[in-house]
Amino acid sequence: MNRMRLFTPGPTSVPEEVLLEMAKPVFHHRTQEYRTLFAAVNKNLQEVLQTKNPVVTIAGSGTAGFEAAMINTIPQGGSVLALSNGKFAERWVTIAKRNKCQVTELKAEYGHAVKPEAVAAALAGKKFDAVTLCHSETSTCTRNDLQAIAGLVRATDAILIVDGITSVGAIPVKPDEWGVDMLVTGSQKALMLPPGLAFVSVSEKARKKIETVVQPNLYLSLPHYLKSLAENDVPWTPAVTLVRGLNKALEMIVQEGMANVWRRTAGLARATRAAAVAMGLKVFSQDPVDSVTGIYYPAGFDDKAFRGALRKEFNMNTAAGQGSMEGKIFRISHMGYVDAPDTLGLISAIEVVMKKQGHQFTFGAGVAAAHQELATLAG
Amino acid sequence: MNRMRLFTPGPTSVPEEVLLEMAKPVFHHRTQEYRTLFAAVNKNLQEVLQTKNPVVTIAGSGTAGFEAAMINTIPQGGSVLALSNGKFAERWVTIAKRNKCQVTELKAEYGHAVKPEAVAAALAGKKFDAVTLCHSETSTCTRNDLQAIAGLVRATDAILIVDGITSVGAIPVKPDEWGVDMLVTGSQKALMLPPGLAFVSVSEKARKKIETVVQPNLYLSLPHYLKSLAENDVPWTPAVTLVRGLNKALEMIVQEGMANVWRRTAGLARATRAAAVAMGLKVFSQDPVDSVTGIYYPAGFDDKAFRGALRKEFNMNTAAGQGSMEGKIFRISHMGYVDAPDTLGLISAIEVVMKKQGHQFTFGAGVAAAHQELATLAG
Repeated sequence: MNRMRLFTPGPTSVPEEVLLEMAKPVFHHRTQEYRTLFAAVNKNLQEVLQTKNPVVTIAGSGTAGFEAAMINTIPQGGSVLALSNGKFAERWVTIAKRNKCQVTELKAEYGHAVKPEAVAAALAGKKFDAVTLCHSETSTCTRNDLQAIAGLVRATDAILIVDGITSVGAIPVKPDEWGVDMLVTGSQKALMLPPGLAFVSVSEKARKKIETVVQPNLYLSLPHYLKSLAENDVPWTPAVTLVRGLNKALEMIVQEGMANVWRRTAGLARATRAAAVAMGLKVFSQDPVDSVTGIYYPAGFDDKAFRGALRKEFNMNTAAGQGSMEGKIFRISHMGYVDAPDTLGLISAIEVVMKKQGHQFTFGAGVAAAHQELATLAG
Repeated sequence: MNRMRLFTPGPTSVPEEVLLEMAKPVFHHRTQEYRTLFAAVNKNLQEVLQTKNPVVTIAGSGTAGFEAAMINTIPQGGSVLALSNGKFAERWVTIAKRNKCQVTELKAEYGHAVKPEAVAAALAGKKFDAVTLCHSETSTCTRNDLQAIAGLVRATDAILIVDGITSVGAIPVKPDEWGVDMLVTGSQKALMLPPGLAFVSVSEKARKKIETVVQPNLYLSLPHYLKSLAENDVPWTPAVTLVRGLNKALEMIVQEGMANVWRRTAGLARATRAAAVAMGLKVFSQDPVDSVTGIYYPAGFDDKAFRGALRKEFNMNTAAGQGSMEGKIFRISHMGYVDAPDTLGLISAIEVVMKKQGHQFTFGAGVAAAHQELATLAG
């Protein structure tokens, strides 16, 4: 009777309080009751996204959110500088190309951050409508230096559209202070909700672009969302149960406080990386992000056998590598409803399975290293 | 302690079994567990939509579903015959126009069905890429003769895209038999779920159109959904909790049997219309649909005061009229998780409030008339 634990970088575990909130009878959304709920949600979304800009809520996946940000601000034939070092950044390039944008890709190797100097060089003397970037590239478990890059884009006419899907609520993001025009995130990561909602913040600079862009899509039309949002309303039928769960989850996050949430997430990530090193394993990313850790398998390890045993014997769910990283790494989330005991338990389980499957290391070294780091979280 | 009852034509009440199913811990969607769940869902969706064609599930509102159907099958600059007799049909015209389609609108007055003869005349000698139609126009509580219209469109090269958002699971719809190429529906109506999912069935004729159309949107790209669906998988992160609730709700519907569900819904609608007439009220639609009934207010009645009293005194939620019908009618849903006692209770409450607010009628006449009709449902 091992409790099921999700260490996948989305979906993540949802608190019981949130699950039960969503199990309450459904009510109608064209009511004062809904507008009151949505007003509370919108206020707390601004706190969690650390912005004073409006934050639009869309019923859909993170992909819907990022696509909404792009198609409403970049005119057909517009130009995009796409900073890319992983599978999710590549998806945003796909969207740009489908929308007939002229895309300049600035790539960094998987597992490496995009260098701000390279961004400065790519921007120099060029005019872009938008720059796109994954703050936390989930596929490679890598953090890009958003603050530095935002500082560069801010000085240009381009707007900066940031995939914060696994950074918001996990690592420090300060869009207003740094100059992020559109910050996109999803419900099923650090926000501790099931999948089904996407969020997009809209700066004044982005709003001005939106006013000039004509695009065909209705469902993802940001002017419609922004107009309704001003009255804490929605243009299309919202996913009421998820919004109600969101209200509860946001309350929990705001009560813990953003600085504390970031500190906890960073501590769990540090503990996991320290454990990996102590077990003779190598962390995949050269610029690791604290929301999700990728770890190389020892030579000869089989991804399905390893993660399958973690699931079968311990009811613990981790993620495989994606694309060319498949089979080479496994990934562990530190986002949302996860704490030190969960993480220590995971390290212990990883030790047991790794030992059984033939990796040579000092049994207990991972747990000891993790324990040292986790102790620093205790206060 | 009146139990809250939703008689709004979406969202509708969600069975407790479904709410609790959705409150179970979230699991990951890139797993065999999810594919097994989704396979069961897909099989039952075909039963409930009465089709052998694949049925795509999209995380989004019904608008997302209808837009997906249109943009993936109608090329830019393509031609659409839009049959229109209410607010929802008008929204589909908006989508067509945003997508630069050449739109021929064939309008019927609010509260009247679009005449098949008029459709035949509009089709004669013209070439359309698609014909769009609301089977059950929720705003006017009116049924269009889908079978007759589908028979006309079938003989042409156009595909027929049908808004079945308040018809599927409520009134007989037989897309394969009648010749409906794309049947769109949403979760929060007769499917007894919270809002957040849309469904689109895709015929072979529609699939051939899809193969020829290049459209920019990624999130609503049907080729991506269809490719994944063949393996009971999804292109983007699905709304896992809603899909799990859907599985439960579909099981309940299939167990009752489609013919029984249609019979129950029709009986509740008949009882409501009979009660209205017995109370000296007038049903709005000349061609009423059984999923939702619109009733004219007596002269001098105030919509907010009337529906507010129903809500405040009885915890019963009905819907206002939309657009030009606002203030003139109120609407009552018969879809999904609603039965004879609920409906009889609503009629009783309507009598109490109407009497109190000055409408002259024989007190008890509505309940007596409803009772006569509801008794026919008993077996």
